[in-house]
Amino acid sequence: MKLICSQSDLNSNLSLVSRIVPSRPEPLVLGNVLVIADDTTQKVSLTVFDGNLAIRTSFNAEVSEGGSITLPAKLFNDIVSKLPEMEINLDVNTSVEDSLSNATLGSEQNIVAILSSPSGKYQLSGIDASEFPELPTINTEEENASSELNIEEQNVCTVLLPVSALTEGLKCCLFAASTELSKQILTGIHFKTQKDDFVIDSLEFAATDSHRLAVVQTPLEVPETSEVEPTSAEESLAKTTNLVKDFAVTIPAKALRELERILVNSPADQTIKFSFDETQVIFELGDKRLSSLKLTGSYPAYNQLIPSNFSRQMIVDRKRLINSLELVAVLAQKNNVVKFSLDSEAQQLFLSVDARDVGNAKEALPAEIIGESIDIAFNIKYLMDGLKAMPASEIKMQLNEWNQPVIFTPVGGFKMTYLVMPVQLRN
Amino acid sequence: MKLICSQSDLNSNLSLVSRIVPSRPEPLVLGNVLVIADDTTQKVSLTVFDGNLAIRTSFNAEVSEGGSITLPAKLFNDIVSKLPEMEINLDVNTSVEDSLSNATLGSEQNIVAILSSPSGKYQLSGIDASEFPELPTINTEEENASSELNIEEQNVCTVLLPVSALTEGLKCCLFAASTELSKQILTGIHFKTQKDDFVIDSLEFAATDSHRLAVVQTPLEVPETSEVEPTSAEESLAKTTNLVKDFAVTIPAKALRELERILVNSPADQTIKFSFDETQVIFELGDKRLSSLKLTGSYPAYNQLIPSNFSRQMIVDRKRLINSLELVAVLAQKNNVVKFSLDSEAQQLFLSVDARDVGNAKEALPAEIIGESIDIAFNIKYLMDGLKAMPASEIKMQLNEWNQPVIFTPVGGFKMTYLVMPVQLRN
Repeated sequence: MKLICSQSDLNSNLSLVSRIVPSRPEPLVLGNVLVIADDTTQKVSLTVFDGNLAIRTSFNAEVSEGGSITLPAKLFNDIVSKLPEMEINLDVNTSVEDSLSNATLGSEQNIVAILSSPSGKYQLSGIDASEFPELPTINTEEENASSELNIEEQNVCTVLLPVSALTEGLKCCLFAASTELSKQILTGIHFKTQKDDFVIDSLEFAATDSHRLAVVQTPLEVPETSEVEPTSAEESLAKTTNLVKDFAVTIPAKALRELERILVNSPADQTIKFSFDETQVIFELGDKRLSSLKLTGSYPAYNQLIPSNFSRQMIVDRKRLINSLELVAVLAQKNNVVKFSLDSEAQQLFLSVDARDVGNAKEALPAEIIGESIDIAFNIKYLMDGLKAMPASEIKMQLNEWNQPVIFTPVGGFKMTYLVMPVQLRN
Repeated sequence: MKLICSQSDLNSNLSLVSRIVPSRPEPLVLGNVLVIADDTTQKVSLTVFDGNLAIRTSFNAEVSEGGSITLPAKLFNDIVSKLPEMEINLDVNTSVEDSLSNATLGSEQNIVAILSSPSGKYQLSGIDASEFPELPTINTEEENASSELNIEEQNVCTVLLPVSALTEGLKCCLFAASTELSKQILTGIHFKTQKDDFVIDSLEFAATDSHRLAVVQTPLEVPETSEVEPTSAEESLAKTTNLVKDFAVTIPAKALRELERILVNSPADQTIKFSFDETQVIFELGDKRLSSLKLTGSYPAYNQLIPSNFSRQMIVDRKRLINSLELVAVLAQKNNVVKFSLDSEAQQLFLSVDARDVGNAKEALPAEIIGESIDIAFNIKYLMDGLKAMPASEIKMQLNEWNQPVIFTPVGGFKMTYLVMPVQLRN
């Protein structure tokens, strides 16, 4: 293997993939990134795999000799990220005879990659690419069926999603997924198609850690521009699939947080290909591909938890509410509870926190309140997470009594529902 | 006590002082900041004290009723830092009858401060100002001798120092002081007057943690501008003192790190008043005052460690050396050792790091080398600390053999000596 690439291409791609590399890889090769240089396409691909989650990305390079190797991901990334912006040479030889290789490194059994810049030379011990595990795949095309797992066609689904929809959907619910591994299915985000007049027209994202629930709906329709006209049989199928197939999958939040990072630099009008079978999900966007095991088990029937009728409603400025909560939160360090006093007559919301021995805090802000005045209390952190994610300048709070679930929604077109259970106020 | 001040004044002064407040104060009142409002001068002063180190700062305010109180420093700072830029009211009553004060807070025994902004109201429980300990003082003026500790005049010294000299002196040696409390005297910076032809003309700062030593000399002369003409008897004395008194004190690095923060926003041509007696040091700059206990014990005779003759010398670009060290350091994660190979013939410096199983790294950079070629190894961290602090574009390295102390100095007028002991290379 022999190639020349730019430091910036190698750096941005390496830092995208190397984050998921486990710190104690088992087997050892999973601590490495698989580097494949293709002299036909003049591309270099980088792949990492943590056993569940895999990310592959590729970029253009001057490949004078194709080949593959796996290299310690974090070390490789650390070196490349510190190099100045310049051309980098990467050479791999199975038996290196180089003045730099000392007795320890020079043994013929070692695979050594030499990374060189105009002023420096770095030797990294690699592991043979053949030891890197095959990534799980989804088989949607029959001609590809050779060495890969053959999954029956009816269990495979491919959907095209606008980047913007996925970005907003993830931003507005990822924070609500549980981070406790013991909660299994709740560590994922539930993706579900939504029907309107028997036509699937939107995708619903849901996340809950059992204390709060975030639900987001984004239109599923792919924008009808020339750019996204189906260009292959596969995409035609996908296009059709968008309108007919009903599905529900739960995907680990960890994988989706990495997907968020991939989406961050992608134009909002691009389209991402989302495929899954019984065990795997795959997201593909240009040269980047993320695959993950699905979470198994049935996701809670969260829609039953959302009340449909409310006796009270309040509309407030979102940023002002966040700022006021941050202020009173300073005194809520121990129990983290804030009291909302909705004053219907004064059309004011009072936030208060009482830290017995230390002091207390009160902030007032104008609000449009419908229904009787009420006192109700929340965990500040849960409130904040949801309010910060809502893409709207005003938010609507709907509620019944002080001990019943409350929902927050952004005012405007964006379909998000954030349900929080109130907490009991100490007397 | 009743006052109005700007959020930005209160915030900048509070954050300057509240950093040193201990997290487990003993007695409890040391967790508080002493707030004194003076209706004659229309100033508010803030004081904190950790038992050894005290910082006092003051700022202008509209004081309609003078008074004093101590308030929980971190909480007070947290609230004020989150308030928007606006006018803040601060009221203190010993028995508050306010709709906000509930049963717990409203008891007449409590001293409560009420901080109010246009939209919010914060009650903080305080402790009576009389419980705040008296700060140790240095008595330089006889008329002030009333209630304060009377120290004999000959043991008191006051020096005026240009802010720029102190700033540079601290920046270039604070990093080398020991952070291990058990090393006592080495946790401080040694300040010492330097004589030239029997006239004291500079101040020497030294710090060592026994692995490396940083010594900086800054001119002691106060710039002869109208601005610093002595304006009081005290300053006249100080001015004279600059030229006659010989001294050496060791000041805790912790106190000097806080002093650095005070100096950061001060104009370089300002003058700081530095006084000390047998136990205390005091730095005064405008409205800000920092006092600390001195460290006792004799400081090591560090000048004996610095060799005066060298058989080899090298001059290199400082930034380039730092960048190259940062690169090879990636592979030095375990033993943290870098080998310098000075190639006299090629006039090149080669840096190399060998991480046996993982790989190795080599960087080359041009250097002006005098003397025979040599290999010598260092702890990268120690090298870096010194190189980063040196205010020069080129640095000079002077050495004898691979196992003898090496000194680094900035090329140019700045008088800094950084001594590092080399480490033994593994074979």
